[in-house]
Amino acid sequence: MADRKFRVVFQPSGRRGEVEREKTLLEASRELGVDIESVCGGKQLCGKCKVKIEEGRFEKLGMQSSMTHLTEWQPSEEKFIGEKVMSEGYRLACAAKLKGDVLVYVPEGSRVSEQVVRKDAREIEIALNAAVKLYHVELARPSLDNPIGDFERLTQKLAELYGLKNLTVGYSALVNLPDILRAADWKVTAAVWKDQEIIRLYPGCVEESWGLAVDVGTTTVAAYLCSLKTGEVRGTESMMNPQVTYGEDVMSRITYAMDHPNSGVEKMKTQLVKGLNDMIAKMVDRQGIARNDILDMTLVGNTAMHHILLGIDPQYLGVSPFIPAIHSSLDIKARDLGIAINESSYVHILPIEAGFVGADNVGVLISREPYRKDEAQLVVDIGTNGEVVLGNGERMISASCATGPALEGAQISCGMRAAAGAIERIHIEPETLEVTFKVIGNESVSEHSSPERVKAKGICGSGIIDVLGELYRAGVIEGSGAFRKTLDTPRLRTNGDGKVEFVIAWKNESSTGQDISVTQQDIRQIQLAKAALYAGAKLLMRRLGIDRVDRVVIAGAFGTYVDKDEALLIGMIPSISPDRILTVGNAAGDGARVALLNKEKREEASWIARRVEYVELTTEKAFQDEFIAALSIPDSQDVF
Amino acid sequence: MADRKFRVVFQPSGRRGEVEREKTLLEASRELGVDIESVCGGKQLCGKCKVKIEEGRFEKLGMQSSMTHLTEWQPSEEKFIGEKVMSEGYRLACAAKLKGDVLVYVPEGSRVSEQVVRKDAREIEIALNAAVKLYHVELARPSLDNPIGDFERLTQKLAELYGLKNLTVGYSALVNLPDILRAADWKVTAAVWKDQEIIRLYPGCVEESWGLAVDVGTTTVAAYLCSLKTGEVRGTESMMNPQVTYGEDVMSRITYAMDHPNSGVEKMKTQLVKGLNDMIAKMVDRQGIARNDILDMTLVGNTAMHHILLGIDPQYLGVSPFIPAIHSSLDIKARDLGIAINESSYVHILPIEAGFVGADNVGVLISREPYRKDEAQLVVDIGTNGEVVLGNGERMISASCATGPALEGAQISCGMRAAAGAIERIHIEPETLEVTFKVIGNESVSEHSSPERVKAKGICGSGIIDVLGELYRAGVIEGSGAFRKTLDTPRLRTNGDGKVEFVIAWKNESSTGQDISVTQQDIRQIQLAKAALYAGAKLLMRRLGIDRVDRVVIAGAFGTYVDKDEALLIGMIPSISPDRILTVGNAAGDGARVALLNKEKREEASWIARRVEYVELTTEKAFQDEFIAALSIPDSQDVF
Repeated sequence: MADRKFRVVFQPSGRRGEVEREKTLLEASRELGVDIESVCGGKQLCGKCKVKIEEGRFEKLGMQSSMTHLTEWQPSEEKFIGEKVMSEGYRLACAAKLKGDVLVYVPEGSRVSEQVVRKDAREIEIALNAAVKLYHVELARPSLDNPIGDFERLTQKLAELYGLKNLTVGYSALVNLPDILRAADWKVTAAVWKDQEIIRLYPGCVEESWGLAVDVGTTTVAAYLCSLKTGEVRGTESMMNPQVTYGEDVMSRITYAMDHPNSGVEKMKTQLVKGLNDMIAKMVDRQGIARNDILDMTLVGNTAMHHILLGIDPQYLGVSPFIPAIHSSLDIKARDLGIAINESSYVHILPIEAGFVGADNVGVLISREPYRKDEAQLVVDIGTNGEVVLGNGERMISASCATGPALEGAQISCGMRAAAGAIERIHIEPETLEVTFKVIGNESVSEHSSPERVKAKGICGSGIIDVLGELYRAGVIEGSGAFRKTLDTPRLRTNGDGKVEFVIAWKNESSTGQDISVTQQDIRQIQLAKAALYAGAKLLMRRLGIDRVDRVVIAGAFGTYVDKDEALLIGMIPSISPDRILTVGNAAGDGARVALLNKEKREEASWIARRVEYVELTTEKAFQDEFIAALSIPDSQDVF
Repeated sequence: MADRKFRVVFQPSGRRGEVEREKTLLEASRELGVDIESVCGGKQLCGKCKVKIEEGRFEKLGMQSSMTHLTEWQPSEEKFIGEKVMSEGYRLACAAKLKGDVLVYVPEGSRVSEQVVRKDAREIEIALNAAVKLYHVELARPSLDNPIGDFERLTQKLAELYGLKNLTVGYSALVNLPDILRAADWKVTAAVWKDQEIIRLYPGCVEESWGLAVDVGTTTVAAYLCSLKTGEVRGTESMMNPQVTYGEDVMSRITYAMDHPNSGVEKMKTQLVKGLNDMIAKMVDRQGIARNDILDMTLVGNTAMHHILLGIDPQYLGVSPFIPAIHSSLDIKARDLGIAINESSYVHILPIEAGFVGADNVGVLISREPYRKDEAQLVVDIGTNGEVVLGNGERMISASCATGPALEGAQISCGMRAAAGAIERIHIEPETLEVTFKVIGNESVSEHSSPERVKAKGICGSGIIDVLGELYRAGVIEGSGAFRKTLDTPRLRTNGDGKVEFVIAWKNESSTGQDISVTQQDIRQIQLAKAALYAGAKLLMRRLGIDRVDRVVIAGAFGTYVDKDEALLIGMIPSISPDRILTVGNAAGDGARVALLNKEKREEASWIARRVEYVELTTEKAFQDEFIAALSIPDSQDVF
């Protein structure tokens, strides 16, 4: 019976196929190539994967009765699906398992949207000193009087002209050596990695070469194709991390790996590598070059992404004492990782600071260099996880803040990623409590448009910070975050499930056909996230013995769009003059580029990764106190 | 039409299948897994692949008429198939191409016999200092107070206990690190390559580890499984080089590669690697260990075998000025070569001296160490190619002699490899011209046995040397090698093709149903081979300014069975007292073992490979003179 298969059809895409008994609808959707949102990775925790069962649902015996074509209704589903919606046939795709043929409708709110690319490469100063360099040589033709082998002929000349000693050769480069030397009449260009290893041989005189810097974010993967000759960024490509279907945050991916001990890591690794190769293919096509013209690659990512990319079981990162497999930087042959660049090239993976402060943070540091400054800089990197680093030339300390994914739009009832249709900016008029907002992909502001044109779908990160600030400023919530339930406005109401909520967008302004609102629970989630960041920063300040920081640097693609005043207003960062707040975008990706173009920065990265002192917040009593204190929205006096 | 397939049946094996139009019968035999001898690699040059067409032959229109099911009779076939045999339906399998269905009989003389393993490991003295060593450590469990990563925890302890600094880790070893450390409760054994790289981690305390030394001969591949702890040989395995079907000698394999520029090298490489993996599987099964318990591997082979194994196009070795792709030794990850031992382990490939003096010769040198002696040693390595090295602690010179494969039984009408049924020892009674001989796989000598029990199939290398010496000693041939046609013996006769031949075994003593005889042309082939070796040795002696050598070392599996007196008699080696001739068997394989068990010998190999002066004989005028003079069998006065 276990191998029995059932027919599953997903609407509106119409994708269909046979799926094994006892698989969940979420698993079925993956097999059939249907993208259903899953923030928690199929753990019945996020409620994002609601689907409507069109056929094969009830035997018309009443709602609580046994479902013949799906396994029984789970208590976990009640948290996300009220009775009324349940009666319409809704289930969590991760909870319902197949017992027969089904026709499933995936509502728009449960479909994965394509994320807006917000990781463009910024202009940064990088002293060019690439790890891979090109050396042109013209060799004497071999003869019976001079019968030395091809490799030795080449390396002797490289030593003579450029002082390169003890060169080795990558295996794939060696295999092609004899043919290339002769086809090029002994005039060739050698690509040499770190003046140690010949990784490719070109016929003739070649001057241009290419490198790739990659930032593997939990949500977004960004790649920058750079000229190793000029340092210029020649192409940028971005994609959603394909692992998102296995869980939106780091912990849910670690959990997925633990729940699938034989295949989980491998599956996530393979999908990521495939995604990277697709990006590479697009970029080289646009440049009119070949994949093996990419001679070097650097990679940053948080510790979990780092481990999963390498195929290392990340489970020990997820449990105390949160130990990574390795801190040191790695140079791994691209072919060993399955990455389709020049076969003998290395992928340089930046080092890790600690279990929760990864190579991405090291990237931020080497691109910002706070360790070269006298002023006390607080670097806040807001991704799906939050890292804070504080210090100066004297001392650097770091911590990881369990913000949860709320600031990226997850675990919020109407939250979503920064995709088309996401509300990114909100204003609430204190007098009227009327809301105006701006939606990604739509230049007009709600107030000035006809509702039909707005098409809001949810609220993304920067909008979420605005929500808290604006609700507080307009007096809709107290400093504690509690709704003032006595307010007389139709926007504040009790919904069908008995929960109090504030409507941000009415259903005629939305593309989901539903009102978009913020619940009391949503506000709590936002408070928890901002309090974690604030308390982390405060604790580091205490450790360093300072009351005020000289500068706040907000990194992370999301950070670019944060309203500084709102961030200060809600108490997400320690008080400082707004003009001393700098948003630097994807500084982790900048770090990957810096390491690509300057090999000495790789040494610097190894040095700083060891030097930053990691503070484990979860064991600090003081952190708990700071955290609880930071939950409230601060009095305005506390704001600079 | 090109994709039309025909039905082919091979007898007596009965193997059958569909084969594409225009494929040769030899190609068809390979596709269907039928082993047909092919010395020249399908070039219509050796005549070993004679087969009898049982059906689908003639349209009964006379012999020279068109064959309907096979392509036309080729002039090249006439050299090997006389008119009478042709009329019986014989063709060269490499010449006849399919035009229709055929039934083919493979006569015993054309079947590949399994070679007798003659490459057992000999007892040699090796100071144990393996490149891979095991280090046991017990680590402190990580905690929130001591949250350092797994790799750093391990390497810090290895540095503390064993002074190992700056260790790196092989990719596959890294992937398993976290799980093994925890499963073993932090008590592990690290296998470290050259005190540089962790290539495997074992749970618990492990003391035994394994290495593999491989000698890739043109004809035979020998592998020795050794304990890295004691140095003992624990298993020996030998196989025919699977590339033999692409040509028996180095040049025919190079030619095969040239004729198949897109796939030839890859095909030969793949077959060899598959063969190696099969041998590995057998050896580890017998020892009850796993493949990844083999932690190190060394490999020797002549330059062409070396290139083909690496997938490097060997064509430039085959044309003047005979340039190899690389001289230096190589350490290539086993996984990159597809060799199924521990994934992160390296295969150490010994260096090459020159285009025709390969890593096998370096193996001979490091196992014999003539460069440590005062006496002038002549090392003759007789394989499918012949290499001679002469020298002492002062100076070493080497040359490659184009012996051709005659001394291995090829290109001789009744020659064969050292397999069951091969005549390996011959005596001709000068009075009666009666012949007695001994056959491999049969302890009795022909004279004392009933003819039916002898079952000779052909003559192998050591028998071939005997043939020349005995024919001369008995007065059947002159010093010039010419038959004394006036002799009155039924053994000396003119055969059906008008060729003079001397019968060694009568058909009732043979398993082929044919007389086994030596033709005038065979004698010329043997003379050419022995003259090449002798002239090469003489030229090196002249270069070194000596008249006599102090010792002759005959290496090569074949050399073990050579009768020293006969070798001196025919003038294959310079005259010397027989007690100063040493036969050392597969010294190339010994060299691979030496390098496996002592890493300093790898350095020594690199040093000696550079130090030996290679002499290109083909351009030496003096060589031609020596060679012509050496063709004759010397007067006995010249023998010591």
